[in-house]
Amino acid sequence: MSTIVPSRRVRGTPFSALVESAGAKAFTVYNHMLLASYYESYEADYHHLKEHVQIWDVAVERQVSIKGPDALRLMRQISPRDLDKMAEDQCYYMPICDNNGGILNDPVAIKIAKDHYWLSISDGDLLQWVLGLAVAQSMNVEIEEPDVSPLAVQGPKADELMARVFGDEVRGIRFFRYKRLPFLDTEFVIARSGWSKQGGFEIYVDGGHYGLPLGNLLLEKGRDLNVRIGCPNLIERIEGGLLSYGSDIRRDNTPVEAGLVRFCNSSADYIGKTEIERQKKYGPKRQIRPLEIDGLGDLPHNGSGWDVFDNDKKVGLIASSAWSPDFQVNVSIGMIDKSHWNVGTRLEVHTKQGVRGATVKDTCWI
Amino acid sequence: MSTIVPSRRVRGTPFSALVESAGAKAFTVYNHMLLASYYESYEADYHHLKEHVQIWDVAVERQVSIKGPDALRLMRQISPRDLDKMAEDQCYYMPICDNNGGILNDPVAIKIAKDHYWLSISDGDLLQWVLGLAVAQSMNVEIEEPDVSPLAVQGPKADELMARVFGDEVRGIRFFRYKRLPFLDTEFVIARSGWSKQGGFEIYVDGGHYGLPLGNLLLEKGRDLNVRIGCPNLIERIEGGLLSYGSDIRRDNTPVEAGLVRFCNSSADYIGKTEIERQKKYGPKRQIRPLEIDGLGDLPHNGSGWDVFDNDKKVGLIASSAWSPDFQVNVSIGMIDKSHWNVGTRLEVHTKQGVRGATVKDTCWI
Repeated sequence: MSTIVPSRRVRGTPFSALVESAGAKAFTVYNHMLLASYYESYEADYHHLKEHVQIWDVAVERQVSIKGPDALRLMRQISPRDLDKMAEDQCYYMPICDNNGGILNDPVAIKIAKDHYWLSISDGDLLQWVLGLAVAQSMNVEIEEPDVSPLAVQGPKADELMARVFGDEVRGIRFFRYKRLPFLDTEFVIARSGWSKQGGFEIYVDGGHYGLPLGNLLLEKGRDLNVRIGCPNLIERIEGGLLSYGSDIRRDNTPVEAGLVRFCNSSADYIGKTEIERQKKYGPKRQIRPLEIDGLGDLPHNGSGWDVFDNDKKVGLIASSAWSPDFQVNVSIGMIDKSHWNVGTRLEVHTKQGVRGATVKDTCWI
Repeated sequence: MSTIVPSRRVRGTPFSALVESAGAKAFTVYNHMLLASYYESYEADYHHLKEHVQIWDVAVERQVSIKGPDALRLMRQISPRDLDKMAEDQCYYMPICDNNGGILNDPVAIKIAKDHYWLSISDGDLLQWVLGLAVAQSMNVEIEEPDVSPLAVQGPKADELMARVFGDEVRGIRFFRYKRLPFLDTEFVIARSGWSKQGGFEIYVDGGHYGLPLGNLLLEKGRDLNVRIGCPNLIERIEGGLLSYGSDIRRDNTPVEAGLVRFCNSSADYIGKTEIERQKKYGPKRQIRPLEIDGLGDLPHNGSGWDVFDNDKKVGLIASSAWSPDFQVNVSIGMIDKSHWNVGTRLEVHTKQGVRGATVKDTCWI
């Protein structure tokens, strides 16, 4: 672990004061911003998330705003998902690909209006891809990063806490749908979404100066719910099979390899379609698989990824792994070659602290 | 200062083992990779850099490789610099802009061949911009990030050290020119360049496995030159007026505002030209200026930038500042409104630890 120097280039967020006062112990950098990795510990945070409710500073999920008469035309070019049935209040998770089907980012697209979309991005400057396409085609759209910072409210008590702040109307928000609900002199897009499997919401805080009033109000209203400031949890997201772009999947992977084929159903001639359709037909050479690594709570931290072998042959890579207290196994996510991806296949994982056995599983844990 | 968790998404470099063994005390994240901020201290590193020679892991300067029959056509679209006279062995510093002249990155472009360029980028996924333009126009080019990691050798003894490893031919490399020189079973592009004013070279290490053999050989051959592993130095680069993209300049600045108008001389119809030519003619509203902040060695760390005021009116922002031991002043770089950018203007800087006076200077310090 290393110490990081703050700068204008590696920014804080509208919620940084809350993160600091809550005592985040470690960080990562994501979209040129600080993102907490854990507070008390990965395991303590995990137990709390599954039992109570947490407020996450996920301002790092920057928005790429696409607005104007050509917005839908541009979205059709970049979206592997069919947009025809996307409702006015809907959010779509989607991989966005280059011309060879290589994933450039996997944002959540939010339909703000008929001529206006936000892409709530994972780590990477997707704005530059979208802008390049728009400028080269002289499209009539504005592409910008607005002052919008998501704050996630996650955990089994999320509905109760949100209802106390935004009213019972939040309870009626369906999964990956949103409502616009008032706060002080404004209103926020509030979606039922978030990077956990514990349920909850993402509040798209439009205007950085609302960050602290909102965060503090949530803390105050949730005191008896044992609310805490938290962050996406490594263990829980692996249990849920949530992929981290840059770690589990990259530009050298297609959505088919990433197991995201169900999100590639557009009838439009979108960028990357040829290779994606080919892989849908003939199958990919490798694919994301859940795996369990041998051992009992003594797994070292998986830094930059571990190669996976069958004897002398490299057959994959595990970029995410952690000890799961609930399942009492080392949960992990790997990109595994076709020759070795069948359920039950035994493999060897080259960790920094020696070789471990591992087994390919059929499904994720939660 | 915060602790950072390593992951595959925030990568190490081919030289990370050298950085760790040399004891880097703090890091930043740059292009999804760790970059050391200092070793002994900013000041100790600074004195050493100006007197001896340092080896810098600047693998974070990733290359965007543009290769193919349409490479020059694409380069002409994105380059504000006239490429007609660019020699076969030349490197060009260039701001790259969106259609409104907003800077997207300020790489060094290296002409590898008539149909092949590398853009050695600052912090940001410029690859996505270039790829978007190329794909939208169905250009016949390959855009990729090759396994090329720059290692910089900087300081007054750089020529001597480099000659011991690569032969006296390195001494003949002119400023922002390069030669291909052999190492083991390969050869590297070696340019006279680097992010300091102390002179030296950047070795474009093509193949990550050459990183440690090269680094170790440089250390061994430079023992009597007092060689050290180092990194770009905050104090020295401010003294030299070297801009940090993301801190000093961003997409909301043009090259004219950044004081880079001398690099905007292309006769081609490049992207952003209209606004850049307009600002060249009528002048920008604000511009980069060197400033000296009052005080003697007691300046707090400039985290996310300090607003600059004239009484109640905000007239600029200082994103980079440090105490200069050689000049015994607080050197800094700010973006200052036209109304207040004249040499000698007195301003107030709102630091985290109170208000300080500051004066606009005519030139940088080195």
